[in-house]
Amino acid sequence: MSDAAHLTKAVRGREKLAGAVFDALAAKTRRGAGICRASYSPEENYAHDLIAEEGKRAGLEVSRDAAANTYVTLPGKDRKAPPVLMGSHLDSVAEGGNYDGAAGVVAGLVALAGFKDAGWTPARDLTVMGVRAEESAWFQVSYIGSRSALGVLAPDVYETAKRTDTGRSLAEHMVECGGDPDKLRRGGAPHLDAKRLHAFLELHIEQGPVLHAEGLPIGIATGIPGNFRHPQIVFTGEYGHVGYAREYRRDAALAAAALISGLDRLWEETLATGQNMTLTVGRLFTDPANHALTKVAGRVELSLDMRSTDPALLKMLEARFQAIAQDAAERYRVGLDLGRRTSAAVGVMDDTIRGQLLRAAKTLGLPHKEIASPASHDAAAFSAAGVPTAMIFVRNDHGSHNPDEHMELSDFMDGTVVLASWLAEHGGK
Amino acid sequence: MSDAAHLTKAVRGREKLAGAVFDALAAKTRRGAGICRASYSPEENYAHDLIAEEGKRAGLEVSRDAAANTYVTLPGKDRKAPPVLMGSHLDSVAEGGNYDGAAGVVAGLVALAGFKDAGWTPARDLTVMGVRAEESAWFQVSYIGSRSALGVLAPDVYETAKRTDTGRSLAEHMVECGGDPDKLRRGGAPHLDAKRLHAFLELHIEQGPVLHAEGLPIGIATGIPGNFRHPQIVFTGEYGHVGYAREYRRDAALAAAALISGLDRLWEETLATGQNMTLTVGRLFTDPANHALTKVAGRVELSLDMRSTDPALLKMLEARFQAIAQDAAERYRVGLDLGRRTSAAVGVMDDTIRGQLLRAAKTLGLPHKEIASPASHDAAAFSAAGVPTAMIFVRNDHGSHNPDEHMELSDFMDGTVVLASWLAEHGGK
Repeated sequence: MSDAAHLTKAVRGREKLAGAVFDALAAKTRRGAGICRASYSPEENYAHDLIAEEGKRAGLEVSRDAAANTYVTLPGKDRKAPPVLMGSHLDSVAEGGNYDGAAGVVAGLVALAGFKDAGWTPARDLTVMGVRAEESAWFQVSYIGSRSALGVLAPDVYETAKRTDTGRSLAEHMVECGGDPDKLRRGGAPHLDAKRLHAFLELHIEQGPVLHAEGLPIGIATGIPGNFRHPQIVFTGEYGHVGYAREYRRDAALAAAALISGLDRLWEETLATGQNMTLTVGRLFTDPANHALTKVAGRVELSLDMRSTDPALLKMLEARFQAIAQDAAERYRVGLDLGRRTSAAVGVMDDTIRGQLLRAAKTLGLPHKEIASPASHDAAAFSAAGVPTAMIFVRNDHGSHNPDEHMELSDFMDGTVVLASWLAEHGGK
Repeated sequence: MSDAAHLTKAVRGREKLAGAVFDALAAKTRRGAGICRASYSPEENYAHDLIAEEGKRAGLEVSRDAAANTYVTLPGKDRKAPPVLMGSHLDSVAEGGNYDGAAGVVAGLVALAGFKDAGWTPARDLTVMGVRAEESAWFQVSYIGSRSALGVLAPDVYETAKRTDTGRSLAEHMVECGGDPDKLRRGGAPHLDAKRLHAFLELHIEQGPVLHAEGLPIGIATGIPGNFRHPQIVFTGEYGHVGYAREYRRDAALAAAALISGLDRLWEETLATGQNMTLTVGRLFTDPANHALTKVAGRVELSLDMRSTDPALLKMLEARFQAIAQDAAERYRVGLDLGRRTSAAVGVMDDTIRGQLLRAAKTLGLPHKEIASPASHDAAAFSAAGVPTAMIFVRNDHGSHNPDEHMELSDFMDGTVVLASWLAEHGGK
């Protein structure tokens, strides 16, 4: 048995730990039909304390930072060498599932516990990070825990961001959870120096049903999508009588339909070339105060999110979107206001680590494929900071962010073993 | 001066009455930027009371029927001869204009007042009818007032039709406005016996901008479109994560856009063959309780009205609509519920009266043309009941069903004089 095979066997031997942690999390943080671990809440604290406690019990080092992120470390031979960081977040959306986020932390914990059992001392520190506050539903801000640790969150956010349910500030919630927002606001050396991180790896349940539909337990991420968004695009036409002749109409509903159908054709064309993107019009509505069965629609509002893991494609898509929207407005003689634009950069995955993870899955005989992450992840914050980053997806049914999210423990262990195999063969060497 | 010229001059002398009635209606039924005279509302009552009052002041006979329609009559020599009926509706859409409907009632009132001033006793009764509840936006039913008077409205409608804003039944609203829905439900002899009506004439502002665009004050209708309507078409997909892959989505917004764009192409193709139709999606909306920028739309609701003056074309259009809707549902794997269907038959205009009106306009030296009515009108209910029917349109800017609707009083008087001329030369003889 090779050293790596020996180590991954020891990690498989820790399956019970994984099951126990997931069960405890579910038992203590279920609220109604779903899981609710709000960012900087007692339920999120429970998860962090549980990970710390199980880390200590496994003989690993445990620490916290000023953002109350939790770190569990298997010390390496060279404690000054840039460590490998892995992990994910421990918060959840309201009415969420148990695995979105937590799976990535438990995977790291199980891997390190297995390595410790096997008596392995890696070349460098291997650290699993339980990240705070990834779900932007709570504070409407992305990657609070990871960006605080990296020192790249704008200092004013601690005061300006309010939790949507309590209305109280991020700083206030952080203090309640043992964090030190004043320290974070002052700046100074961040807890994590991006330049001195060997790599960041995140295991996460899949959020699209690709792996589930194709019967594959494992996916390796090709990238985390960047996006551009227009939360409030408005076409302004003219309300008119239902019998108004076509050539005299200024119909906002036809313009909106032309935009959406045009974007849909662009989506089809783009996929046909083998490139990845998604397009979502989540909100679409005529004015409830003025619309009627018998009135030409004078106003339609819609939201748009377009995303891709390819930065060049994303730029092209935005230009095409603007042209299609302009065309629709001109064609139907309606006004067009694109409103506010927000965007997020593409999270680029490290090609070397991707290749190594693919080989590890192949060597282990685990069916897998490369997939573009449909969603945002903490890994994107590490990638943006310049850390070599990769992600492993685990098959999951019914999507995430809902109580029906369903991951099999055996699939989880397959993903964890891919992670462990990479650590044994590459990260820990 | 001929008798007819003498009579039309007397009608022109009543221009002030027209202006005063329009001004009073605008002053008392403006709600915000627009006019709002809901079907069977206090505002609609105000309009009926005003017409009745001005009719009495002009020395005319005034009566009501069980549907609370108002009748103002200049008695003829033979009170038993089938009368000429003219008129239009006094309700309006929400945020509507002052003239859509009311112009036709005021025209009749002004004509009869002028005749009375001139001391003319026509051969038969000439009656102007203020019709209730023509705007189907309120009860989602066409021609409530005129069909009740003719005894052809289905008896269950009085209870089943609910006003969209109040949720209360047509019967309840009728009673509040002095109507007797129980009498209407019981059937029996209707207030108007279609077989004993000499003719029905309706003057109405134009709703497409054809006359305005071509600089003509007067139009004579070639026909009134029939329609089919689906007030509540629902596509039911599945709410999903913004990053969900295309092949796994069930996106109701894309399905709705595909339906609307498909119908729009059908419209263009149909017009290209020289046939007439219009298509209106007045209401279009995702679910405000569940939609979000970052969620695939799981539900979209829309309304549809398609109309044409050609019965055969209308039948073909409905088949094409159903096929396009089915295709959209299948393509996006979403459920489709077409919901309730209503329809109105094409309103055929009487060729003899059309010719007489055209000659009257020519004799009076008024620029005019024949146009297909873009909209539905009470006249269609009379046409369907077998009454010889015709319509006169008056130039109007900015369309109707909106606060910017704009008719010049001089154009209105031109239309009224065409009506009066026909009554003097034909209807009252």
